[in-house]
Amino acid sequence: MAEERQELDEDDLAMQRLDAVLSAVEAGDAAGVDALLEPLHAADIADILEQIGASDRAALLALWHGGIDGDVLSELDESIREEVIGALPETVVAEAMRELETDDLVDILEDLEAPAQGKILDALEDADRVAVEQALAYPEYSAGRLMQREVVVAPEHWTVGEAIDFLRGADELPYQFYHVILTDPRMHPTGYVTLGRILSSARKVKLCDIVEDGFRTVEATEEEADVAYIFNQYHMISCPVVDDAGRLVGVITIDDAMNVLDEEHEEDMLRMAGVGDESSISDRVLETTRLRLPWLFVNLLTAILASLVISQFEDVIVKVVALAVLMPIVASMGGNAATQSLTVAVRALSTRDLTGANVSRVIWRETAVGLLNGVFFAVVMGLVSAFWFQDPSLGLVIAAAMVVNLVVAGMAGILVPVMMERAGVDPALASGTFVTTVTDVVGFFVFLGLAGLVFL
Amino acid sequence: MAEERQELDEDDLAMQRLDAVLSAVEAGDAAGVDALLEPLHAADIADILEQIGASDRAALLALWHGGIDGDVLSELDESIREEVIGALPETVVAEAMRELETDDLVDILEDLEAPAQGKILDALEDADRVAVEQALAYPEYSAGRLMQREVVVAPEHWTVGEAIDFLRGADELPYQFYHVILTDPRMHPTGYVTLGRILSSARKVKLCDIVEDGFRTVEATEEEADVAYIFNQYHMISCPVVDDAGRLVGVITIDDAMNVLDEEHEEDMLRMAGVGDESSISDRVLETTRLRLPWLFVNLLTAILASLVISQFEDVIVKVVALAVLMPIVASMGGNAATQSLTVAVRALSTRDLTGANVSRVIWRETAVGLLNGVFFAVVMGLVSAFWFQDPSLGLVIAAAMVVNLVVAGMAGILVPVMMERAGVDPALASGTFVTTVTDVVGFFVFLGLAGLVFL
Repeated sequence: MAEERQELDEDDLAMQRLDAVLSAVEAGDAAGVDALLEPLHAADIADILEQIGASDRAALLALWHGGIDGDVLSELDESIREEVIGALPETVVAEAMRELETDDLVDILEDLEAPAQGKILDALEDADRVAVEQALAYPEYSAGRLMQREVVVAPEHWTVGEAIDFLRGADELPYQFYHVILTDPRMHPTGYVTLGRILSSARKVKLCDIVEDGFRTVEATEEEADVAYIFNQYHMISCPVVDDAGRLVGVITIDDAMNVLDEEHEEDMLRMAGVGDESSISDRVLETTRLRLPWLFVNLLTAILASLVISQFEDVIVKVVALAVLMPIVASMGGNAATQSLTVAVRALSTRDLTGANVSRVIWRETAVGLLNGVFFAVVMGLVSAFWFQDPSLGLVIAAAMVVNLVVAGMAGILVPVMMERAGVDPALASGTFVTTVTDVVGFFVFLGLAGLVFL
Repeated sequence: MAEERQELDEDDLAMQRLDAVLSAVEAGDAAGVDALLEPLHAADIADILEQIGASDRAALLALWHGGIDGDVLSELDESIREEVIGALPETVVAEAMRELETDDLVDILEDLEAPAQGKILDALEDADRVAVEQALAYPEYSAGRLMQREVVVAPEHWTVGEAIDFLRGADELPYQFYHVILTDPRMHPTGYVTLGRILSSARKVKLCDIVEDGFRTVEATEEEADVAYIFNQYHMISCPVVDDAGRLVGVITIDDAMNVLDEEHEEDMLRMAGVGDESSISDRVLETTRLRLPWLFVNLLTAILASLVISQFEDVIVKVVALAVLMPIVASMGGNAATQSLTVAVRALSTRDLTGANVSRVIWRETAVGLLNGVFFAVVMGLVSAFWFQDPSLGLVIAAAMVVNLVVAGMAGILVPVMMERAGVDPALASGTFVTTVTDVVGFFVFLGLAGLVFL
């Protein structure tokens, strides 16, 4: 309960802060806005910008444009980042961009339209612009886009003392680094040493004698989802990135991997629900409608398919209207069981717990679970229907349909995503709609078909 | 395409490896098993154990029991960890446990039943046992359970040189650490310095002059989900944990936070689909059936509710059987639109993008999106139905029902999870079932009710 209260307090605090900011904006009180936002972390400022309406946002930016910096732009959800960048004077944007590391710059630039992108690129210093352009030359969602190009390297033969002297003398070091990467003379990484190991070893110890076990690199063209998997699977903190010749070109750190993992999660969840790549609750009404409509349209087509099945049995429905009352139950139970099975499968595919090695075992398992639950609900619903409509035959019909549909649900829930994965399609992509189409069609067909045999 | 091929290759490789291990197990070839497993990362060995059947697993462990170590046990999914620990000789388990850091030990022990827990605790060295028991005294899913107790601290007044000399002389340091935490004489943390800063600063620099901005601590009783949020929001790498008197008791590192984030996401996804806390695809058939059945039962009750609505309109269905054909379309579109809205809401609640500050704006947005999509699909489905059944009135009835149901879907999709959150219930918990119940009931009622007015 204490936890509960604390969380509510935090939410209240955030609301009070937001109210205070909005009041200051309405009063045109630039100093007040400054005073309220200045102590906040960039991520919290970005949250405020995301949570207010577009007109308040424009008013706030007009009052506070000198205050916004690269970190805030970097934290902003991409759905409103473009709007915010558009609302700010070019000099403010250029200044904000110059503060950022190349990986954050790339992250912002890749989402922008070409003209906005070009304007910002022109405003960068030459070295940064070249670095960003090189990163943008890698495919979208690749390790090359994700990595930071600032790396800390040392020749293999150096000692701890030499490394420390080099670090102390370095002009500029990355904002965050956790390892010193050892390279051979051709810049091929051969291992890395944690900073903790360097700090706790004597100056004369050779770096190559204290490298970490299980050293791995990733190629710059590798997909970022694979990189995130490697970080998660092998508990890595940072990972050197190499080009196709095996030369070191950058490093990816765990916070980037964590971000990717989070985005992959979001994508899975939204795609399964047929929300596509809707980016956030800050999207506008028209944009959201446009993004959701195609998925609903697919659902409409599949629903019409199910209706076509029903229309084949109009004569039996007219004769036994109880069928119309009960048929949504068969379809609903099938859809629900299929969604259970599907969700477990999509999750297991994305964590790579479901592979070619165990897929047949899992298919068998889901079918068996479907059968057991099918039998249970067949008995329950058979009895309920027989008593409700005073008709034992109706009970038998719904019981049989329930068993068949729940077995099919279990199998479809696993087979559809597995086949999508094999075909190179994201198994989360609207698979919910496909799977429930199967259970709707099978459910209506078996239930009404059996009823036709029994009652006509 | 190259990426695609590479991924398939990795999957093939994993399958070949698994086949080779299974062949060696069947042949009773202990040396072969050893040779195959020895070069693998503990996480990959755990994956193999998870992907084979229970009898193969038992055979493998019997052949290889000397090879299994603490890291493998720590990587194993909890659904089979208990089985594996039970199958191993006690001495092997005790030996494996002694290798682990306290946070990994706690992670394993908290999932075990009391007798197995006691046995392992007895086998630990005194210092470790006390540390683990202290951690277990914190509530489940709290920062206290998550943290490692091994911390690297320095007095505020130390210089870089003093810190380096201390680290070089230390008997034992944590396996991973990224900061030196500064404390006052009463062990209250006052800031921290990154190892990179220490390494790149001159020996005479004072630690308190190079501390990081935005220093934060968390309380040991804080929920782990909140801790993960803080790591993600503020891009932290490690975070000191304090007791209720503000004294340093441990530290949480980003890999632990990443794990929690991953588990929270899995929980959201599974709970939304009504799969409850099913832990993995390694669960057995009976266990899985038992876990899924209650959710299907809830769905059955809500489906019966929808059927009761339909049964009120039997007379109009008998008269216009096209209603039975079309009514699942209205329900299906409502359910789908509601799931879209719900998924975005659950996701936004869990990332805290949806708060008291913007909830009314988002409710309005979802309602407006529902209205726009409702109008679009009303026109489409109205025309389709009018032509299909050669009956313009039927087209008007379904069009009206579509608009109402899609507006209700948008509102229910956001209101249900928000109200659950306010009531202190996880908004992901089977909210899919509740929301589609609303759209089923409303859809059937409006469609059949209007039809009754028009056709009777």
